[in-house]
Amino acid sequence: MTKNDTIVAVSTPAGVGGIAVVRASGADALPFALKHLAVPALKARRATYCRFDDLDDVVAVYYPKGYTGEPTVEISCHGSLYVQQAVLQALVDDGARMAGPGEFTMRAFSNGRLNLSQAEAVADLIDAVTPQQHRLAVSQLRGSYAAKLKELRQQLLDLTSLMELELDFSQEDVEFADRTELRRLLSTLHTQLATLIASFRIGNALKRGIPVAIVGKPNAGKSSLLNALLGDERAIVSDVPGTTRDTVEEFLTIGNLTFRFIDTAGLRSSSDTVEAMGIERSRKAIADADIVLYVHDLTQPFSHDDLASLPVGGKHLILVGNKSDLAGTVLPEGFVAISAKDGKGLDGLREAMLAAVEPQAMQQVLLANPRHHEALMRVQQALMQVSQGLEAGIPADLLAVDLRDALYHLGSITGEVVSDDILDNIFSRFCIGK
Amino acid sequence: MTKNDTIVAVSTPAGVGGIAVVRASGADALPFALKHLAVPALKARRATYCRFDDLDDVVAVYYPKGYTGEPTVEISCHGSLYVQQAVLQALVDDGARMAGPGEFTMRAFSNGRLNLSQAEAVADLIDAVTPQQHRLAVSQLRGSYAAKLKELRQQLLDLTSLMELELDFSQEDVEFADRTELRRLLSTLHTQLATLIASFRIGNALKRGIPVAIVGKPNAGKSSLLNALLGDERAIVSDVPGTTRDTVEEFLTIGNLTFRFIDTAGLRSSSDTVEAMGIERSRKAIADADIVLYVHDLTQPFSHDDLASLPVGGKHLILVGNKSDLAGTVLPEGFVAISAKDGKGLDGLREAMLAAVEPQAMQQVLLANPRHHEALMRVQQALMQVSQGLEAGIPADLLAVDLRDALYHLGSITGEVVSDDILDNIFSRFCIGK
Repeated sequence: MTKNDTIVAVSTPAGVGGIAVVRASGADALPFALKHLAVPALKARRATYCRFDDLDDVVAVYYPKGYTGEPTVEISCHGSLYVQQAVLQALVDDGARMAGPGEFTMRAFSNGRLNLSQAEAVADLIDAVTPQQHRLAVSQLRGSYAAKLKELRQQLLDLTSLMELELDFSQEDVEFADRTELRRLLSTLHTQLATLIASFRIGNALKRGIPVAIVGKPNAGKSSLLNALLGDERAIVSDVPGTTRDTVEEFLTIGNLTFRFIDTAGLRSSSDTVEAMGIERSRKAIADADIVLYVHDLTQPFSHDDLASLPVGGKHLILVGNKSDLAGTVLPEGFVAISAKDGKGLDGLREAMLAAVEPQAMQQVLLANPRHHEALMRVQQALMQVSQGLEAGIPADLLAVDLRDALYHLGSITGEVVSDDILDNIFSRFCIGK
Repeated sequence: MTKNDTIVAVSTPAGVGGIAVVRASGADALPFALKHLAVPALKARRATYCRFDDLDDVVAVYYPKGYTGEPTVEISCHGSLYVQQAVLQALVDDGARMAGPGEFTMRAFSNGRLNLSQAEAVADLIDAVTPQQHRLAVSQLRGSYAAKLKELRQQLLDLTSLMELELDFSQEDVEFADRTELRRLLSTLHTQLATLIASFRIGNALKRGIPVAIVGKPNAGKSSLLNALLGDERAIVSDVPGTTRDTVEEFLTIGNLTFRFIDTAGLRSSSDTVEAMGIERSRKAIADADIVLYVHDLTQPFSHDDLASLPVGGKHLILVGNKSDLAGTVLPEGFVAISAKDGKGLDGLREAMLAAVEPQAMQQVLLANPRHHEALMRVQQALMQVSQGLEAGIPADLLAVDLRDALYHLGSITGEVVSDDILDNIFSRFCIGK
């Protein structure tokens, strides 16, 4: 890929609309555009209304340093398939090249306008359908997440400095006694890393929708409950990127959080008289869930043994007593009474679901990117080596190798060190035009 | 519909993309936008990069008189479903209203920025997929078509003035002898109207794709020919607005013209040994076509009687001799030799198709809008009454009624006179956001 040629693409969504925006970026973006625009020049950042060839009346804006960090021209034209194609073609005829997926953002990265983690956040931002997907992306793009990475990096550098200080002394063959500060820094780093790594579970859940399993005995009203919960809400998403939706998942947004009901095949449509979900399948659904809704038919006796067989350890278990509309029922301790039939108690259930995960979900810094998760695990591993080496009295110059390793993996997140393969992999998931 | 409230919509195509543009138009567009933008003011026509609430980094442009003729703010945000929705919601929470289909353009019309025919052209422009659809729309928006309507109107007004002059005289009971100028003007108008009305056939054909029927005896190679013609081209359109595409139509672009093969059900996929198109069906296809490709198997004897049964009068008939690759064939007079099998002669056939319609297609002024067609027919009718009345010696004040009728119907095209029903009908076919 030539790095300073001029690239073009439609940056607005594919399809027909009132207007579309064609973006050109690169050294020749301005001269290429001016060949077609019926104006002698474009003032920087001024929306200029003019004709594009004999094709269309457009609004053109020139940015000396645009999103990419390069000269950029954005042309708002009519959003017909024909005009979009014809404007692109005209610029390609001049010598511009059709941009690949994410190539504008890749240039923003290459030109130092974004670090790699921020570039990835741009893709997440564009894919965001739910509020929390958006919040996670924004946090990664400009917020607390970036600050946290910076902080970790600074602490690692401090640690390295201390280590190097010791190295200097050791060359002078002087005993370096006080490793207190070193240990303190290491311990802080370990804690922060562990917290960040642990947040991946909720971060990932937030990104994909918080997984909820609905389980219970046959005829308890599982599918009625699902239908009652979903029935109130219009379906907010037809497809959430990155999730398979082969009729086994259903989405429900409560407040600012989106929940994802897993393995609802059968539940959604089946009559409740059919055992829609076998025991093995329930165990599997529970294993994948953060929240387990255990549905109990209040007209039946409840025994704690019913629950004992389910692997709900470590999950947010919400006990739901259904059929509260029927006469003569008794609510066991700890159950939320609902009636899937007439909708009573559903608000309480929703609140219980929110309450179960909201504190974690509202954490300022959440790890949500699997690539970052893996890199941080490697940082943790390397620091573990440092700690162990320190205890074992291993010389500082050997520990420095592990420290460099930790710095390397942390750097791979923001792209200070990164291979072309990783870059290609990251940018290929972008849409064209961004 | 309140006419001066502030309306908002996403003006870019529906879906996910790098960026999307939210447009607000109306008296409060600027104050509503400024409530959310992290800048104290927006300079007119200056692309201003700033934060929108805590939501996104956007580029906002303020137009004191935008496309609608009203204060307009265009906000380019990230093109995620979430951000698009959230920006809209923020402005709606301020008191803006979601725009209906075509409501921005309707305001442009109400505010005198566009006449009605131009407003309709905007919808056509956005729907355009093929070069000729685009050309027709542009001509209607700003070109020769608008000029022609203006010219007709002026001539009608001149005619009316002459008529009124006569009325003045007649009140003074003076014989008004010389109706030469009146007759000359009327005759010019009749000719121009007839030409314009006649152009509707080709204008309409261009808009929908020039209809082509492929007919011929069983086994002549009709489906092979269709496949050979289409095989070279990538399918340019998956759906052309306004055309049904229930697998019976196929599109092919040659040069600047798009052809539409009609009633190709069966032809596209069927083996040629099956009689894919019965005689009755062929007659129907021919009736709808502008161009008829009559396919003849060159290995068989040709008799003009084969053609005689087909209603090809008034059509562009192209005689195609297929299977030229086989030995011992003789090309009858007037046939284009091709081989659907090895592709020989297809270029010649394409040229013949282009040559058949290009002269008409390249006419400067083409009528393509059915509503305008109907209105012009009424203008013609009214003028016919005037002509007949003139010959019959009917007094000028009675003829003036017909002239006013003619002016009324001409005015309905550009919207000088138009009912709310017609307006609703026209703008309802727009997309939201335009």
